[in-house]
Amino acid sequence: MFRNQYDSDVTVWSPQGRLHQVEYAMAAVKLGTATVGLKNRDYAVLVALCKPASELSASQRKIIPIDDHLGISIAGITADARVLSKYLRSECLSYKHSYGSTYPVSRLITNLGNKMQTTTQRYDRRPYGVGLLIAGYDEKGPHIYKVEPSANFFNCKAMTIGSRSQSARTYLERHLSTFNASSKDDIICHGIHAIRSSLPNDELVSKDDGGSQLNITVAIVGKDQPFKILSDEENLHYLEMAKKRGGSIIVSKDDDDDDKPSPGDSEEPAPSTARDPQVAVATMENP
Amino acid sequence: MFRNQYDSDVTVWSPQGRLHQVEYAMAAVKLGTATVGLKNRDYAVLVALCKPASELSASQRKIIPIDDHLGISIAGITADARVLSKYLRSECLSYKHSYGSTYPVSRLITNLGNKMQTTTQRYDRRPYGVGLLIAGYDEKGPHIYKVEPSANFFNCKAMTIGSRSQSARTYLERHLSTFNASSKDDIICHGIHAIRSSLPNDELVSKDDGGSQLNITVAIVGKDQPFKILSDEENLHYLEMAKKRGGSIIVSKDDDDDDKPSPGDSEEPAPSTARDPQVAVATMENP
Amino acid sequence: MFRNQYDSDVTVWSPQGRLHQVEYAMAAVKLGTATVGLKNRDYAVLVALCKPASELSASQRKIIPIDDHLGISIAGITADARVLSKYLRSECLSYKHSYGSTYPVSRLITNLGNKMQTTTQRYDRRPYGVGLLIAGYDEKGPHIYKVEPSANFFNCKAMTIGSRSQSARTYLERHLSTFNASSKDDIICHGIHAIRSSLPNDELVSKDDGGSQLNITVAIVGKDQPFKILSDEENLHYLEMAKKRGGSIIVSKDDDDDDKPSPGDSEEPAPSTARDPQVAVATMENP
Amino acid sequence: MFRNQYDSDVTVWSPQGRLHQVEYAMAAVKLGTATVGLKNRDYAVLVALCKPASELSASQRKIIPIDDHLGISIAGITADARVLSKYLRSECLSYKHSYGSTYPVSRLITNLGNKMQTTTQRYDRRPYGVGLLIAGYDEKGPHIYKVEPSANFFNCKAMTIGSRSQSARTYLERHLSTFNASSKDDIICHGIHAIRSSLPNDELVSKDDGGSQLNITVAIVGKDQPFKILSDEENLHYLEMAKKRGGSIIVSKDDDDDDKPSPGDSEEPAPSTARDPQVAVATMENP
Amino acid sequence: MFRNQYDSDVTVWSPQGRLHQVEYAMAAVKLGTATVGLKNRDYAVLVALCKPASELSASQRKIIPIDDHLGISIAGITADARVLSKYLRSECLSYKHSYGSTYPVSRLITNLGNKMQTTTQRYDRRPYGVGLLIAGYDEKGPHIYKVEPSANFFNCKAMTIGSRSQSARTYLERHLSTFNASSKDDIICHGIHAIRSSLPNDELVSKDDGGSQLNITVAIVGKDQPFKILSDEENLHYLEMAKKRGGSIIVSKDDDDDDKPSPGDSEEPAPSTARDPQVAVATMENP
Amino acid sequence: MFRNQYDSDVTVWSPQGRLHQVEYAMAAVKLGTATVGLKNRDYAVLVALCKPASELSASQRKIIPIDDHLGISIAGITADARVLSKYLRSECLSYKHSYGSTYPVSRLITNLGNKMQTTTQRYDRRPYGVGLLIAGYDEKGPHIYKVEPSANFFNCKAMTIGSRSQSARTYLERHLSTFNASSKDDIICHGIHAIRSSLPNDELVSKDDGGSQLNITVAIVGKDQPFKILSDEENLHYLEMAKKRGGSIIVSKDDDDDDKPSPGDSEEPAPSTARDPQVAVATMENP
Amino acid sequence: MFRNQYDSDVTVWSPQGRLHQVEYAMAAVKLGTATVGLKNRDYAVLVALCKPASELSASQRKIIPIDDHLGISIAGITADARVLSKYLRSECLSYKHSYGSTYPVSRLITNLGNKMQTTTQRYDRRPYGVGLLIAGYDEKGPHIYKVEPSANFFNCKAMTIGSRSQSARTYLERHLSTFNASSKDDIICHGIHAIRSSLPNDELVSKDDGGSQLNITVAIVGKDQPFKILSDEENLHYLEMAKKRGGSIIVSKDDDDDDKPSPGDSEEPAPSTARDPQVAVATMENP
Repeated sequence: MFRNQYDSDVTVWSPQGRLHQVEYAMAAVKLGTATVGLKNRDYAVLVALCKPASELSASQRKIIPIDDHLGISIAGITADARVLSKYLRSECLSYKHSYGSTYPVSRLITNLGNKMQTTTQRYDRRPYGVGLLIAGYDEKGPHIYKVEPSANFFNCKAMTIGSRSQSARTYLERHLSTFNASSKDDIICHGIHAIRSSLPNDELVSKDDGGSQLNITVAIVGKDQPFKILSDEENLHYLEMAKKRGGSIIVSKDDDDDDKPSPGDSEEPAPSTARDPQVAVATMENP
Repeated sequence: MFRNQYDSDVTVWSPQGRLHQVEYAMAAVKLGTATVGLKNRDYAVLVALCKPASELSASQRKIIPIDDHLGISIAGITADARVLSKYLRSECLSYKHSYGSTYPVSRLITNLGNKMQTTTQRYDRRPYGVGLLIAGYDEKGPHIYKVEPSANFFNCKAMTIGSRSQSARTYLERHLSTFNASSKDDIICHGIHAIRSSLPNDELVSKDDGGSQLNITVAIVGKDQPFKILSDEENLHYLEMAKKRGGSIIVSKDDDDDDKPSPGDSEEPAPSTARDPQVAVATMENP
Repeated sequence: MFRNQYDSDVTVWSPQGRLHQVEYAMAAVKLGTATVGLKNRDYAVLVALCKPASELSASQRKIIPIDDHLGISIAGITADARVLSKYLRSECLSYKHSYGSTYPVSRLITNLGNKMQTTTQRYDRRPYGVGLLIAGYDEKGPHIYKVEPSANFFNCKAMTIGSRSQSARTYLERHLSTFNASSKDDIICHGIHAIRSSLPNDELVSKDDGGSQLNITVAIVGKDQPFKILSDEENLHYLEMAKKRGGSIIVSKDDDDDDKPSPGDSEEPAPSTARDPQVAVATMENP
Repeated sequence: MFRNQYDSDVTVWSPQGRLHQVEYAMAAVKLGTATVGLKNRDYAVLVALCKPASELSASQRKIIPIDDHLGISIAGITADARVLSKYLRSECLSYKHSYGSTYPVSRLITNLGNKMQTTTQRYDRRPYGVGLLIAGYDEKGPHIYKVEPSANFFNCKAMTIGSRSQSARTYLERHLSTFNASSKDDIICHGIHAIRSSLPNDELVSKDDGGSQLNITVAIVGKDQPFKILSDEENLHYLEMAKKRGGSIIVSKDDDDDDKPSPGDSEEPAPSTARDPQVAVATMENP
Repeated sequence: MFRNQYDSDVTVWSPQGRLHQVEYAMAAVKLGTATVGLKNRDYAVLVALCKPASELSASQRKIIPIDDHLGISIAGITADARVLSKYLRSECLSYKHSYGSTYPVSRLITNLGNKMQTTTQRYDRRPYGVGLLIAGYDEKGPHIYKVEPSANFFNCKAMTIGSRSQSARTYLERHLSTFNASSKDDIICHGIHAIRSSLPNDELVSKDDGGSQLNITVAIVGKDQPFKILSDEENLHYLEMAKKRGGSIIVSKDDDDDDKPSPGDSEEPAPSTARDPQVAVATMENP
Repeated sequence: MFRNQYDSDVTVWSPQGRLHQVEYAMAAVKLGTATVGLKNRDYAVLVALCKPASELSASQRKIIPIDDHLGISIAGITADARVLSKYLRSECLSYKHSYGSTYPVSRLITNLGNKMQTTTQRYDRRPYGVGLLIAGYDEKGPHIYKVEPSANFFNCKAMTIGSRSQSARTYLERHLSTFNASSKDDIICHGIHAIRSSLPNDELVSKDDGGSQLNITVAIVGKDQPFKILSDEENLHYLEMAKKRGGSIIVSKDDDDDDKPSPGDSEEPAPSTARDPQVAVATMENP
Repeated sequence: MFRNQYDSDVTVWSPQGRLHQVEYAMAAVKLGTATVGLKNRDYAVLVALCKPASELSASQRKIIPIDDHLGISIAGITADARVLSKYLRSECLSYKHSYGSTYPVSRLITNLGNKMQTTTQRYDRRPYGVGLLIAGYDEKGPHIYKVEPSANFFNCKAMTIGSRSQSARTYLERHLSTFNASSKDDIICHGIHAIRSSLPNDELVSKDDGGSQLNITVAIVGKDQPFKILSDEENLHYLEMAKKRGGSIIVSKDDDDDDKPSPGDSEEPAPSTARDPQVAVATMENP
């Protein structure tokens, strides 16, 4: 994926039929902090991890509300995400105005994809450098979508994108079968556990005493539940809840684990449980 | 087909009269999973093979419905395919609105080709990186068309595009003469058998026990049959049916076979029959 | 005609006053299969040779009907030809609508040339990569025109373009003087003989028994004869007729032959006569 | 961050998913003199440091009033800042005209970010080369925002940008917890102290006797306080006030200091106290 | 005039104040066959030499009628000439429609020059690659104009452009003083003699017996004589006439000849008189 | 400031956050002859030095009147300055027409700056290559502004731009404190003295006897004084006046001089006083 | 002024603040033949030297009439000059139509300069490659203006541009003081003498006997004298007149001559007086 002669322009094909500039834009998603989306029968949940830019400023918003039935979580170039969220918001508004109802999620995402595709085929633009997780709810129930800089999108049961999201992905895959029947509280806790998996162990240990606080933001949308970014109290509530349950559902990162976490997994060593306090409360502003 | 001095721009001719960028875009089709189209007297059928992007997400839709009388199957850049399918849909809609009837398939494909041609002659665009198989039905009967990134298209009796589609092509060529008189069930089974041919043997063996499931989606359009992507139950039904018939129609991949499969072909070794379970049911969502 | 410093852009002149990119586009015509056009006093005939893309698909249409009094035969990039034929069709339609009569052929070709010229003078386009033979009939009688990627065109008595068309050209030149007074059947047979000359000898021998069938399509326009692509039966009829006459008019490819073929030419060796069966019937669809 | 093959165009991604041209534009902010923004419960304050371009001209305005409830402080390319401030002003005017109220700060900044984003995605523009600190007041109280050339923005409690702003940042972080409850005078003094931290020690000493005067401009907005750039007298007043308090709150630049400045810090050596006279009064014109 | 660093773009000046791309376009004129224009008191005559592209096609038209009072003869890129002649025709039509009279020749040429100039000053075009000789007649009498790819034009008494036109030029210069008082037949013969001078001697000898026929087309416009391309019979008539007079006016190509051809010039060696038969009748179609 | 990899395009940032093309445009100002602007309480004065292009032509106008309350003096590309002055004039006219009053100077300059900024951010333009000194008068009194190719501008008490303006700047700085209280005659003389400082000593000596005359133009605007370029007689009057006062205010170019010129400075050596005759009267035309 | 890295694009500044492409366009003026303009109290005169392109064509017009009160003389790219003269003509026409009077010369030239400036600041154009001398007459009397490719223009008493114009310039400078009081005949003779100075001595001698005739065209505009290009008879008349006076006013080309030509200058050697016959009468057509 390194330098070659066909990667300087988004409109240039490599002899192998690849668009290197689009692939490079995909790499921008991996530079953002991780975010997780998952759903049960009635709710879709987003959990995002934010490293505060500095003590002086609030964390950047990783979760952006779009409409009552939809919100997004982002990884990559924030400014690109804002432009896309502005597009989504104005689409939802027009739709509501024209049809008096909420925009069906899959159609909205299809239009977003078509908009993003144009930046991959015109020489005077660059592909958007951001990945999105969309949590929405419509007549067909809750949805989690992943949208990539390539303008490709995926209908997901659960998904994670961003930096070091592989461990979170492993967590999600292991518990995937249980999500649909879980309670609302359960899937929020699963989301928190999943995102904690993406934190490198040593970082957590060395900065345990408040050096740099990591924020987790949680958002939910679903049946009779407009899209809502949880308040600090609610976040704290669920963090405590997830911590308590942690013993029983936490997984090691070894890939040779069994598919279903055994109770023995709860005998994890100290660093793992010591990890929880780090997941501090974000001073996230509601927009 | 490797680097030369005339392949950096779609508007540059090589001294031999070739457009290398268009040829490179053709290579993108080979990076997509295989798909097959075929028809009998009354029906056109598409069969597509999808590797799920991950356990967490549904497979990407390889078959996209356009109108009651038409649908497409794709191999290559999905985002490009979506833009083209949006164009096809809006063309069909306008036509219906203006003339009160369905768009004749060959005229629609001709217009699609003309639209795609412009990307091969303008310096500020790139050719679309996707191949399409179109299954349609109109007054002239069922149609299978192949459309290439070069904006070229072909009226076919049966066709396959995508990764490792050569074996599927061989299968289709061997049974081509029987398609026209086959029943609906027959050609669906032929389509399933053809696409199975494009699966590498070893992959199937090594991951036999559920490691990564391969999905097959089937769609049909024809006489009194609006374009329809089969449900999971229907898919399963035809997979079982194809499996049962497999012994009698399966072909080896040796090119020195006779044109008509002999009954002796049914004595294929285990791996071949073991192959069937891998062709699992897709969790394909209807759009 | 190989790499130099002035051939990367269609708007760049070489010090010798040449436009290399336009010349390279001319080379694209030679990559297409051959096609032949000729006329007598009342009819203009096109004969095209198509290698089927595969057994699975019909041959690509090498002859495209434009209007009742006009059709074209192509060699080169098919997608480019389609765009040009769409232009010709819409011109003819507008003309009919405005003047109530058919578009005079020479004026139509002049306008086509002007349209094509713009692609040779603008930096953001490329020249069309296709050569055309036009067969038309208007108040001045039948016409055969050749149009090149350079936007240049020629009023011809007979002409051939495409891959290995030199032998066909030699054939046409030898019989040129007889065309004007020939019957309709005669010039069709001449066209078939001419195009057969462009087939390499060895290819014909080695695949004699049906391996890859070569298709010939014939089209005619003239006095009281709207432009018409012959049906398979008609094609077959003329192929048989040409075969029978073959003995008397067939020419060797040696350039030291006399101008008028002697009866002795009929003693050609077996491969030559064996050649005929290869000229099989095309499954050409009428558009 | 030095020369590589992907940094010549704002629309080119590096293989690592970075946009080097955007990063280089960020460096322009560091070439501007420092500016500081901070807030308490009711007021937001901007303090800017200007080196006069020459004795002959007034300092360039580092603080630009936008509307009654908003003003900005800049670091980087002044001409770019002026274009952005013109945009902000005209947005506020339109809003007032349409809704009869002041533009909510966060929405205004979001729109500014979207405007700036376009320059990072189009090949025919360059990113703006200026960083902004925005001080605003609306129904939600006082705000300090930081906007970067990347089009990214941050909601801050206190912030500093520009040349050598690290020391000012350290100062702000140390006193951050006290700002919210501070009086208006307190936070102005804190701002003056913070910006003084960004002055290199030796420069102050060597040019002590009037060689080059450094100007500080202060602006405030808040509850019942329209945005206002302080007059020379007011500036002087606060400089004196800050100087008097300096003993108690001044911090050394050693990072191994305690979090809370001890009284012993007031025994700073002469150069530090000698620093104050340099902070002279600017002949800043109100716009 | 070979490769340097300032010849790749029509909008780039060389340090010497030259536009190399414009100069290169001038070279395209020399690649066309020669053409001659001359006039007497009442008539302007064009004579063009065409090598037939092949036996199969008519020669390309080197003389193009524009309006009743005007026609052009070309050397260089034919497609470019056609675009320019289309422009001239539509200008004449508009003028006639607006003013009810023919377009004054010098004004028409001035506008043509201005149109052509734009292609020499815009980076996205190339200069036209064709030279024109214009023969026109208006209230001021007959005119011969030369127009170059540089958009420069010249009012001439007689002129020649194209391949090997130097000898024709010499002929014209020698007889220039006699043209004005010559009869119509005289200047046509002079034109034919002039263009014959541009034929290389050896070529004529070696292909004497009909191998490749060279065509000459003659056109005339003048007092009570609308622009007219002579018919084959008329051409033949004048060729015979020129042949008969040839003995008395033919000139050798030695530059040390006297200004007025002496009768002794008629004792030219055989090859020169043998030249005449080659100047065969063109099958030029009237448009 | 020499060649590097980021200086070929105005829209390319260097890794250090600089726009080299903008910096290079700044250098164009230094290629123009010097000009000086200064003001007292009621008047703003411009003094410009022009080397006549040749004896044959009048000097180029270095001072351009814009409106009754405003004029500009330029250094750099004259054609660029004319375009900018046209803009200023049309702005003043529109303003007068809309509001019935003169355009406030600072607002006008702000708009000029915004117009100039666009040329520094678009790839298809270049920054203007001219520096401006603006002398204006409005309700707030007299103004001197400096505008740079970077689109940056400065409100000044006195200023000089152009070739070798450093000495003039030194002169202005030394007498800056006295300007505000000076009489109209005084500041004109100061302006003349300042600009004389920018003349190289040797040039003046060697061409003392009329070889090349240097012109000085003076313009004034202020209280009850519309912008006016002085007539030759008035210029001469002030030159004489400045010459007489010269002895008392002239400064050496040594930077180690005292701040206030001592009477001893009047004993300057001959060359300095010999300098005056060179400052001849310009044949400046009033526009 | 030779190749460097900043001279390929008109919108690129060199580090020294120069626009090399504009400078190169200036060089195009020196490639044109010389032209001279001068004026007395009531008349402005243009004298142009044309080398005929060939015996066959009239000289290209070096002097172009614009309006009754204005005409131009050119040196450089003729096609560029024509486009500019078309602009001037249409400006004068509009002005006359709107205001019923002639366009004041200085305003017209200013607008011309602004039009030409745009070609020096846009990447998709090139600067015009032509210098102009304008002779005009309006309420302020006669005017001579010089306009350069840089879009810069100069109000002149007398001026010369073009190839080897240095000697003509020297002539003009020597007699400059006498022009204003000269008679109309005097300044025409001065103009003829000036332009003769630009002819190289040897060229005149060697081609003395009519080999290549040099043409001089004279035009005049002034009080009660609409702009008029002199007829051949008038030209001849003045050439004779100038020849007679030649003895008394001719100057050698040595720069060490005295300022006022002494009578001794009339003893010039033969070549100089032999020069006159070469200045033949042009067959210039009035437009």
